Amino acid sequence: MCESDRLETFCDGVFAIAITLLVLEIRVPTAERVHAAGGLLHALAGLWPSYLGYVLGFLTIGIMWANHHAIFQYVRRTDRYFLLVNVLFLLTIAFVPFPTAVLAEYLPEPAERGDAVVLYSATMVAMALTFNALWWYAVRGGRLLEPDADLHAVRTIGRRYLMGPPAYGVVLVLAFFAPWAALAGHALLALLYLLPERGR
Amino acid sequence: MCESDRLETFCDGVFAIAITLLVLEIRVPTAERVHAAGGLLHALAGLWPSYLGYVLGFLTIGIMWANHHAIFQYVRRTDRYFLLVNVLFLLTIAFVPFPTAVLAEYLPEPAERGDAVVLYSATMVAMALTFNALWWYAVRGGRLLEPDADLHAVRTIGRRYLMGPPAYGVVLVLAFFAPWAALAGHALLALLYLLPERGR
Amino acid sequence: MCESDRLETFCDGVFAIAITLLVLEIRVPTAERVHAAGGLLHALAGLWPSYLGYVLGFLTIGIMWANHHAIFQYVRRTDRYFLLVNVLFLLTIAFVPFPTAVLAEYLPEPAERGDAVVLYSATMVAMALTFNALWWYAVRGGRLLEPDADLHAVRTIGRRYLMGPPAYGVVLVLAFFAPWAALAGHALLALLYLLPERGR
Amino acid sequence: MCESDRLETFCDGVFAIAITLLVLEIRVPTAERVHAAGGLLHALAGLWPSYLGYVLGFLTIGIMWANHHAIFQYVRRTDRYFLLVNVLFLLTIAFVPFPTAVLAEYLPEPAERGDAVVLYSATMVAMALTFNALWWYAVRGGRLLEPDADLHAVRTIGRRYLMGPPAYGVVLVLAFFAPWAALAGHALLALLYLLPERGR
Repeated sequence: MCESDRLETFCDGVFAIAITLLVLEIRVPTAERVHAAGGLLHALAGLWPSYLGYVLGFLTIGIMWANHHAIFQYVRRTDRYFLLVNVLFLLTIAFVPFPTAVLAEYLPEPAERGDAVVLYSATMVAMALTFNALWWYAVRGGRLLEPDADLHAVRTIGRRYLMGPPAYGVVLVLAFFAPWAALAGHALLALLYLLPERGR
Repeated sequence: MCESDRLETFCDGVFAIAITLLVLEIRVPTAERVHAAGGLLHALAGLWPSYLGYVLGFLTIGIMWANHHAIFQYVRRTDRYFLLVNVLFLLTIAFVPFPTAVLAEYLPEPAERGDAVVLYSATMVAMALTFNALWWYAVRGGRLLEPDADLHAVRTIGRRYLMGPPAYGVVLVLAFFAPWAALAGHALLALLYLLPERGR
Repeated sequence: MCESDRLETFCDGVFAIAITLLVLEIRVPTAERVHAAGGLLHALAGLWPSYLGYVLGFLTIGIMWANHHAIFQYVRRTDRYFLLVNVLFLLTIAFVPFPTAVLAEYLPEPAERGDAVVLYSATMVAMALTFNALWWYAVRGGRLLEPDADLHAVRTIGRRYLMGPPAYGVVLVLAFFAPWAALAGHALLALLYLLPERGR
Repeated sequence: MCESDRLETFCDGVFAIAITLLVLEIRVPTAERVHAAGGLLHALAGLWPSYLGYVLGFLTIGIMWANHHAIFQYVRRTDRYFLLVNVLFLLTIAFVPFPTAVLAEYLPEPAERGDAVVLYSATMVAMALTFNALWWYAVRGGRLLEPDADLHAVRTIGRRYLMGPPAYGVVLVLAFFAPWAALAGHALLALLYLLPERGR
């Protein structure tokens, strides 16, 4: 295996595990809760914040996986610092199940909703920042690029990535005042990424 | 690595983790339960709904893994939308441990049994639908097929996949009236798939 | 990727996850337990059944991984039934964290110790049986062997595998009468496998 | 796949899972705790020992992954004993989530802090010892080296690895007397490794 292949495989493992662990935050309703809700189906319906968190976390990690995947279409070499920045980026990815669980737990509580969305948004900012660090470290001066990399494509992609931190930063500020609007912002940013052809 | 190889590896990771997380829903019996059951072996025997859920969930994910595997014998390229549909399909796979845990918990309760089987069956319908979306997106007009793909085999496979959503839909409707019959339906559908040569 | 490569990768994922999930059965001692034990170090020392279960489960899954690895040195093709038997074998591997957790919980209780070792031993019997099914299905009449496979080595390996089910069966019977002796039997069987050169 | 490739893949799986399981030790604050802390953000801030443990455990496993990665740049063959030592090394890696969880739980308690750091440090010593066993078994007399391995590089690397066990041993002794200093020692050792060019 070439060096960057093994790094990719390791990162993919972390992505795959973090995305699959999200399901553990959806708890089976207890007998008491089923009784209070008037039946299992009603209790299951009452878990909507958990489902919402699951879908949001799943799409987020899925999108970041695809982005990370895109980096390695241009980067074929690695070095010590690149490995280090990668570990910091993975640290934010593997962290996602925690803010997602907090979101699922406190979204229905008006008093705590804002704080839960702040935590989630701050995690997204950290993720966008470390992801950009990864990209710019690799492409700066063509450091880890393949000799025949398409520099025009690299610049176009890079400019798009650069918009991530300020965009998530705005959503983070929004989260302090308007949690639901911030959540809608997260959904919108995910959609924008998922349907890029529309955005052009 | 070619593009579809990395996608396969990522998906296989999600399959492998989801299938292995199923065991976490089998809880070690508490000392009180052991005492009430009159010994550990009796308490372990009382966990039969958990074992049933474990086996059913394991076979289901195992079968879907084999099906997904089959897709990639014909599909060698990917694009943005294919990735997206894949993420939606994986979202249903990684979700399986939750309905399985609900099934294991509420199967012995006559009042809640039906609802638990409904949730499980609905998950299967979502899985069959996203799986078909994946397949038809890839083969439609030969979009992501290898140039020399065996079109006759592609058509035969596709027709078989198409039977999935209506079959699971019937089981879902059945679940509202006859939970045990619906469970038998799930076992039957799994067997039909596992022993395809018999079915021809 | 060749067909058996993807199967290997999937199985390796299940092995890696099952082996790593074992650590989740070691629970952080509660503040009450720390207080009762007279300090954290004493409470940690009191977790010896969990450590024992962790090491035993880890070695068991590690050994089975190496055995499974050995099969694929001879088997390069797969078919539908081989996939199915593989799924049944993986079902026993992914199950190991449960009997291990039961062992860790009830080993210190004289009244339940035997039952806990019975469950563990029965799991080992099921594992040895499905593993043999896997091997014999593949090599029977050279079904899935490489054309130039070393048939002498295949026969030697097969004879060694065949000893697994009766050996674990004896330990299972022993578990009903003498749990500690049965545990020693498991350790001995693991050692026999780990140091094969010594055994020749 | 060549023999050492499959071993690498399996080990990478264990690394990736152990590193991602770390997040499970960060528990969502209960409603009572949120109330007592005067809001969710304050309760989240009160989880700093969990975050510290998460970051420390993540960097530790990440570093060991990179080190393990380095071994396989020189080792291309495996044998039975190498597999066995690898399993023992992985046993210490997969164990890390437990001492990390203990650290996160008991770091704020002055009476138990020392014991928690002792457990963490002892785990690091075991990890450094099994890692060295792995390295020296492979390179001793060039046993598993590629024929054209750069022996000068092998010696330089080996000398650096040899410093691990005594360095972690000193930190372990320190943990009995000065837990915070020992924790600083762990952070320092991690930094030393992460920024090697600075150290030269």
